[in-house]
Amino acid sequence: MTKKNASMPCVLLTGFNLFAGETINASWQAVNLLDDTLIAKHRIVAIALPCEFNRSLAVLLNAIEQHHPALVLCVGQAGGRSEINIERVAINIDDARIADNAGKQPIDCPVIADAPAAYFSNLPIKRMLIDLQQSHIPAAISNSAGTYVCNHVMYGLLHHIALHEPQLKAGFVHIPYLPSQAVHHSGSASMSEETVNNALKVLITTALTAKQDVKVAAGTTH
Amino acid sequence: MTKKNASMPCVLLTGFNLFAGETINASWQAVNLLDDTLIAKHRIVAIALPCEFNRSLAVLLNAIEQHHPALVLCVGQAGGRSEINIERVAINIDDARIADNAGKQPIDCPVIADAPAAYFSNLPIKRMLIDLQQSHIPAAISNSAGTYVCNHVMYGLLHHIALHEPQLKAGFVHIPYLPSQAVHHSGSASMSEETVNNALKVLITTALTAKQDVKVAAGTTH
Amino acid sequence: MTKKNASMPCVLLTGFNLFAGETINASWQAVNLLDDTLIAKHRIVAIALPCEFNRSLAVLLNAIEQHHPALVLCVGQAGGRSEINIERVAINIDDARIADNAGKQPIDCPVIADAPAAYFSNLPIKRMLIDLQQSHIPAAISNSAGTYVCNHVMYGLLHHIALHEPQLKAGFVHIPYLPSQAVHHSGSASMSEETVNNALKVLITTALTAKQDVKVAAGTTH
Amino acid sequence: MTKKNASMPCVLLTGFNLFAGETINASWQAVNLLDDTLIAKHRIVAIALPCEFNRSLAVLLNAIEQHHPALVLCVGQAGGRSEINIERVAINIDDARIADNAGKQPIDCPVIADAPAAYFSNLPIKRMLIDLQQSHIPAAISNSAGTYVCNHVMYGLLHHIALHEPQLKAGFVHIPYLPSQAVHHSGSASMSEETVNNALKVLITTALTAKQDVKVAAGTTH
Repeated sequence: MTKKNASMPCVLLTGFNLFAGETINASWQAVNLLDDTLIAKHRIVAIALPCEFNRSLAVLLNAIEQHHPALVLCVGQAGGRSEINIERVAINIDDARIADNAGKQPIDCPVIADAPAAYFSNLPIKRMLIDLQQSHIPAAISNSAGTYVCNHVMYGLLHHIALHEPQLKAGFVHIPYLPSQAVHHSGSASMSEETVNNALKVLITTALTAKQDVKVAAGTTH
Repeated sequence: MTKKNASMPCVLLTGFNLFAGETINASWQAVNLLDDTLIAKHRIVAIALPCEFNRSLAVLLNAIEQHHPALVLCVGQAGGRSEINIERVAINIDDARIADNAGKQPIDCPVIADAPAAYFSNLPIKRMLIDLQQSHIPAAISNSAGTYVCNHVMYGLLHHIALHEPQLKAGFVHIPYLPSQAVHHSGSASMSEETVNNALKVLITTALTAKQDVKVAAGTTH
Repeated sequence: MTKKNASMPCVLLTGFNLFAGETINASWQAVNLLDDTLIAKHRIVAIALPCEFNRSLAVLLNAIEQHHPALVLCVGQAGGRSEINIERVAINIDDARIADNAGKQPIDCPVIADAPAAYFSNLPIKRMLIDLQQSHIPAAISNSAGTYVCNHVMYGLLHHIALHEPQLKAGFVHIPYLPSQAVHHSGSASMSEETVNNALKVLITTALTAKQDVKVAAGTTH
Repeated sequence: MTKKNASMPCVLLTGFNLFAGETINASWQAVNLLDDTLIAKHRIVAIALPCEFNRSLAVLLNAIEQHHPALVLCVGQAGGRSEINIERVAINIDDARIADNAGKQPIDCPVIADAPAAYFSNLPIKRMLIDLQQSHIPAAISNSAGTYVCNHVMYGLLHHIALHEPQLKAGFVHIPYLPSQAVHHSGSASMSEETVNNALKVLITTALTAKQDVKVAAGTTH
């Protein structure tokens, strides 16, 4: 049996705490299951980010400083989507339809003032897509992580990397509702905990081991 | 361990063979997994129906004659749906957009000439819905089984029962794509084999054991 | 100019009064515009049905008795649909998710006790579909009118015809939101008043003049 | 009657030529109707862009040089959408699922090498959204213009402006199918020519006259 210890390279895997009246958050449930497991010779450190514009990034950056991960994969819940969505890009805007857990509702504010308009994920997103599909898991590339806390976290993370740790691999994926959540959202698609769990293992393995990305078409016409 | 034998009461559970270029059919895959298992003290007899207007009903009625089931539950695949759909009603019409596996494409023909316009399932569909949801499985009542082989089989089955075996319990459920199928249908919802398997066990158990149906609203406004 | 008078043959065209907090109902708005116009040498008599299970049918049957129409076309609003939906069949069940305007919420009750499970529209629905499409108007055949007041009215109307006036032509169509309504239902499809107006003229003309229906595939697989 | 002449300030309004086997393109049809009309004291110059990665931008920038517009509004067709979509941001990536009209299919190439990851529209997009909604026209802010020729044109346009004409107002909107197109795309939403025409007038008027944007929430959570 492989031994884990604190000196082993690690992956920081984040989910979100509850928000908007949900009693569970698929992202935290999925991420927490992998805490302290080994994937591709890396120890998984799972943490929950608060669903708050202000504190989410502080908690994330603090964990990066503490754990020195080789990879940061943030996971958010995208209620209504049917597939694992690998996010391609984060944009420098907050535009919140509802208040976050701290009661803040920024509208058309930059995530970080005087910073670039966007950052692309530095993960091999097409390779990750192909590997999910070959594992029989429905997936797609997404060209928008929205304008809420998910995009905020992804943008802030990639901005931090651009400034301070350009070698750190980092990205964001959105996952569907769990079946138990979809029961309360009539007509919504869902994905089982087991499938999401397998998806995260594939995504982390590919992100850690792929030498470079592949060029396969996975865009949208509009 | 419970022993099974041919004299034990049984449930006839049907799926469909492949059609329209699919390499697997979710309904047969789900049904076949339960073949020869025991659910609520009944032995499951799983059979595959041909995806043909003409032969599907003959095969089904022949199996009923052979096995004398206490319950007939027919399962079809509804690509694109996100939930288990419990069918409420079958209508006396065939209207095929594509030819069936025998090359037949009936358009606006009755399933059975000079027979009633429709039959309602005699299963406790609302109790089945509630029990699925309490098992954390997304589900809904459907008010149309379409106008293809699925509706044809459901109508023919209920017509047979109305004429010859009014005490026989029978109904139809549609299930989503499997994840491995949704990979090839971009954007489509799916449901894992394990979830579908659990759903069928719940549905069969409730259909066999519920004393009567419950009145809970689960209709549609249009 | 063509003269209209009370002895001229007429078409009874019905829409619904407001319900569920809407400030307009697309069906009444569309129907009212055609009141007292001439289509295919028939005078249009537009009336509003109350959105109530009990009174809707009474008002409709009373109007039939008063006006002796050659055709009854009932129009309902189907919020969220993108096309004109020509209903094929009405089923003998009320299953209301919300109370009607009189506070009634029937669940799993027959529209009419001891009556057939369903009635098919006696209109040339495929010819009507083709004629709409050739007029560049998005349309489809629908195999379920739901289980609310719309289906209730369609069933009750066709039951009346089956018993008392088998020569009377009658059917039901659902129309999308108006653009002004879709503004308040984020993401919903809509259809302009002008397009709906043209659609109703086509539908009425075809229903009155088609010698017989055509056989074109327009069903659904599930 | 107001006179128009070449010295009058103008708006450059662009649509796209046909692509992907369509026999009409909603964007060019809508744009062409407004050619040489007057909106908010500006003459409309409508041009068609080729649906080609390489030539589209050349044609656009050449027209800007020739006409010195006060505003550039590019319009693209988004088949399947139900609302006018005002694009917020263009990203520096081409990822084509299908070849363009010149047979080119760039995959994961930058629109412009060594240029910023994204540009935000400099139009008052929230004011434009509100004004459309107050005109009873369904609309939304979109956070992705895709990764095809539409995004390519929007990015190239905003890059040009950032480098050479920072005072020039410019943006991109996507429009739904016309009803006549939706007839051939079963189930697709559509918007009438008249509604799109009104929408473009509102958008141009607001873009030209709004002193500054308003802060209203219109983002997405994911």
